[in-house]
Amino acid sequence: MSKNEYKPVPFKENNKTSRQTKKEQRRTPVRIIPLGGLNEIGKNMTIIECCNDMFIIDCGLAFPDTEMLGVDIVLPDFTYVEQNKSKLRAIILTHGHEDHIGGLAYLLKKVNAPIYGTKLTLALVDSKLKEHGISEKANLNIIEPKKNVKAGCMTIEFINVNHSIPDSIGMAIHTPAGVLVHTGDFKVDYTPINGGIIDLARFGELGSKGVLALMSDSTNAERPGFTATERKIGDSFDKLFNQAEGKRIIIATFSSNIHRIQQIINSAIKHNRKIALFGRSMVNVVMTAVELGYLKAPEDLIIDIELMNEYLPEQIVLITTGSQGEPMSALTRMAMNDHNKINISTQDFIIISATPIPGNEKYITKVINELMKSGAEVISAGMYEVHVSGHACQEELKLMLALTKPKFFIPVHGEYKHLKCHKQLAIGMGIPEENIILGEIGNVIETDGIEMKVVSQVTAGRVLVDGLGVGDIGSIVLRDRKHLSQDGLIIISIVMDRVNKRVVSGPDIISRGFVYVRESGALIDDARHVVINTLKHCTPQELNEWNYLKTKLRDVLSDYIYTKTKRNPMILPILNEI
Amino acid sequence: MSKNEYKPVPFKENNKTSRQTKKEQRRTPVRIIPLGGLNEIGKNMTIIECCNDMFIIDCGLAFPDTEMLGVDIVLPDFTYVEQNKSKLRAIILTHGHEDHIGGLAYLLKKVNAPIYGTKLTLALVDSKLKEHGISEKANLNIIEPKKNVKAGCMTIEFINVNHSIPDSIGMAIHTPAGVLVHTGDFKVDYTPINGGIIDLARFGELGSKGVLALMSDSTNAERPGFTATERKIGDSFDKLFNQAEGKRIIIATFSSNIHRIQQIINSAIKHNRKIALFGRSMVNVVMTAVELGYLKAPEDLIIDIELMNEYLPEQIVLITTGSQGEPMSALTRMAMNDHNKINISTQDFIIISATPIPGNEKYITKVINELMKSGAEVISAGMYEVHVSGHACQEELKLMLALTKPKFFIPVHGEYKHLKCHKQLAIGMGIPEENIILGEIGNVIETDGIEMKVVSQVTAGRVLVDGLGVGDIGSIVLRDRKHLSQDGLIIISIVMDRVNKRVVSGPDIISRGFVYVRESGALIDDARHVVINTLKHCTPQELNEWNYLKTKLRDVLSDYIYTKTKRNPMILPILNEI
Repeated sequence: MSKNEYKPVPFKENNKTSRQTKKEQRRTPVRIIPLGGLNEIGKNMTIIECCNDMFIIDCGLAFPDTEMLGVDIVLPDFTYVEQNKSKLRAIILTHGHEDHIGGLAYLLKKVNAPIYGTKLTLALVDSKLKEHGISEKANLNIIEPKKNVKAGCMTIEFINVNHSIPDSIGMAIHTPAGVLVHTGDFKVDYTPINGGIIDLARFGELGSKGVLALMSDSTNAERPGFTATERKIGDSFDKLFNQAEGKRIIIATFSSNIHRIQQIINSAIKHNRKIALFGRSMVNVVMTAVELGYLKAPEDLIIDIELMNEYLPEQIVLITTGSQGEPMSALTRMAMNDHNKINISTQDFIIISATPIPGNEKYITKVINELMKSGAEVISAGMYEVHVSGHACQEELKLMLALTKPKFFIPVHGEYKHLKCHKQLAIGMGIPEENIILGEIGNVIETDGIEMKVVSQVTAGRVLVDGLGVGDIGSIVLRDRKHLSQDGLIIISIVMDRVNKRVVSGPDIISRGFVYVRESGALIDDARHVVINTLKHCTPQELNEWNYLKTKLRDVLSDYIYTKTKRNPMILPILNEI
Repeated sequence: MSKNEYKPVPFKENNKTSRQTKKEQRRTPVRIIPLGGLNEIGKNMTIIECCNDMFIIDCGLAFPDTEMLGVDIVLPDFTYVEQNKSKLRAIILTHGHEDHIGGLAYLLKKVNAPIYGTKLTLALVDSKLKEHGISEKANLNIIEPKKNVKAGCMTIEFINVNHSIPDSIGMAIHTPAGVLVHTGDFKVDYTPINGGIIDLARFGELGSKGVLALMSDSTNAERPGFTATERKIGDSFDKLFNQAEGKRIIIATFSSNIHRIQQIINSAIKHNRKIALFGRSMVNVVMTAVELGYLKAPEDLIIDIELMNEYLPEQIVLITTGSQGEPMSALTRMAMNDHNKINISTQDFIIISATPIPGNEKYITKVINELMKSGAEVISAGMYEVHVSGHACQEELKLMLALTKPKFFIPVHGEYKHLKCHKQLAIGMGIPEENIILGEIGNVIETDGIEMKVVSQVTAGRVLVDGLGVGDIGSIVLRDRKHLSQDGLIIISIVMDRVNKRVVSGPDIISRGFVYVRESGALIDDARHVVINTLKHCTPQELNEWNYLKTKLRDVLSDYIYTKTKRNPMILPILNEI
């Protein structure tokens, strides 16, 4: 992308150029605080504050990076919210994806406030809260696009947007300082499967009247052009269903992509196939969506998985989770022949209707290889148009900027490189560089209608969840896990006589994850002698100072092992006294 | 890709259709055995056997999958070669990439045979062998395209191909059963940077005379079209050098991509910049290539990194390793501000001239984010044409099939899904499906000129190298490392009196990588009581049976910890006797 691609034509109404000619007054400032658990700024959680009022946009989770060993999920740090809970007026949810609602159950254990979301979003939230046993505590309020909610001195107006899950919203936040627009996750789909086209007119109306600041989704800011309509996938499915004649069809996709599932349902009806669902979240979400009317399916279309064997392969479409090749998912277990109900064979035509999330490429490739080895035909994105993104590409991002004509611009929802790319787009359209802020997690971005700047920093970061533990995994535990995972562990166990200061049992050497025992026999024997020798040359006083002794044994054995093997196992001396 | 894309026109000369009208005789069979350390069939190593003679094509290494914790590299299993070393006549190296030469030092510790490779390949091999201290043992023989080497009853003819490293070769293997063609890693570059265009004419000549079987590179079999010429990158560099005016340029690429480095040199000369090299392998490979004449650079162009500060930023191009975001690489250390010589600032214009290898996307994204945060401009593939592949895409693969017109076809160098895609291309061009073999590692594929089939299986697999240990890391060690990495470790240490069968010290509980100690204080205390209670309720006989006792303690504590934390740490009871 060249910097000269766009001809900068400043937005006359709202930006600096016009401000300098008009007299404007500083107003009560509003503060924007992007939080979030991992790398995507403001994705999982954003706080909006004005005077003594504050509300939260989204409360999601992130999935751990590979170096966060053993960690299940990553939450935003809620400290700032807890410290200011008296000001908290509302929690607004833009849509029902995990990275926007998955942290709510944890937040509600610390603070409470009315929760606002569209019908589908709240249905998905409710089932999560039930799992955590705090459904009753939650004050859930269904909202609709074009309706408002008050949050103290601020009014939040909901605006319909398109995304890969129905019932997604953006919002206009009417504050004393001016109007803030937040797109939420969005794309522009002129032929959406349901829910209507994104309300571009309202974004435009807001722009005409004057938008103080825009926060806009940067996920696809590096991608040129327009994101294709979801409807395109329906055509692909129809063609692929023809190709799959006589075979069982298995489609892996995200359970939350209800548009996608609707299109599978449509194709299944056309081709006289029944649908079976596989994977816990697939069953939950589809059943909820059918119940609420977001999915339209004839009553007898969806059959119980147990009844699948009563049908011929060519009468079945199996919709399953596991499109990312996740190790324990339904599709992976089918691929590895580790599934008691489903055997993959030449009778199967498998469509992976998703693209790998960065980091998952190798998992899904492995799954595809195994499915193919079983003789199945496998279609994946790249080979055929079986997936479109739920996020706006560059032309849509420019459209949003052109409609809202914001004075200030805060690219959100993306890693730094995406935000920077989004910033370049905005500069190309005439927004002065100094009016664009690339925030970081925890930044307090303040605007009084005249200026916008980062004024301070609040406690923010990542809280790691492992099992039932929230925040008890810190850098030391992760460092130990990393160490253990790379080179394993050697334990030196010694029993000492308290009185005589002599060794009465051991040293015994035990290893795990270090080297295969049969291979290491001689090495471990030698290691034992190294320890014995070290103990022999210790003075009685040294034998009495356990910290000294432990450090010494660790150092000596570590050197010995490294010289022999070029490895650095964790070495753990355990001294017992009798 | 639709199956009907190609109109099948059978190759008249070589395939079944013609065979049925001509009388042919079975000949002395030749055997092809693809080996290799990981998922790519025949990539790291292939064995060709006929009568009492055998030779090896390539001896490379693979880099470990993420689940191979702590493993440095993965080698092919050399067992079959060792068992048949009396038959080994030659080791042929197709080019100097790690996945084709990196296992040689390990193989030479077990067997010996004359090694044949082009000049650059052998120079790179020699520096590896020196690191292992076995350079003198190796019998290295420089070969050239169009020349032959005898391997017992077989003659190997070398054929020039294009690839992302100079001096790459494919080969025709003249055997009693017929001619086998092996492409090596290849692409078609009509305007290569050096070394001449792939010898398409010779492949065609061989095809006209009759090729029994083709083994062809499947890496890019899923990609339609043609791979672009390396020369295209030179144009990109020139444009980017203009854009970078006044700034220091830093380019990250593979050290072995000498064509790429030549183009950086050319642009540097045009723009009056000096070149500094960074990263051990970058310095080694570039210096070797300059010495051997593969890189053409004026004498004073490449400056010592220590002298860089004597120049202005706009007078410098820094070429560095780390294009994959590898944690310890030069570029990553620059990004993390962890480098004593290089500080990244707004004065830097950074080009990442490579695409991420699957699995590395997140690493490189993190590096790009950090570089951008330091204010540098960062250009990567996807934003600009700064990388082309070294492997043939579908149109080139079809060209190779059309030129060689093989009777039998064995797609190689790819995961199963790539081989399968390559097979579909061949079927589309008229090769009968039954004449195509998708081999697996260790398959013995035999042909007598009439038939080709898998006749048996030899010992094959992956040998893991960790530090100095080759093959001592097996599935148990990896399973333990995985377990330790996910949930850490709890040790129960107890000292028992041999005579009285009673506990004289402990139980002590020690944990690592489980949970932060301060948080876990009460939990560990409670765990200790669980162990004490269990011991109390043991009969003297149970206390005497250590295996029983250890299992019991492990089970009880495991249940307790899981109930409390939903985690499954490794539990290691250590009993000492006095």
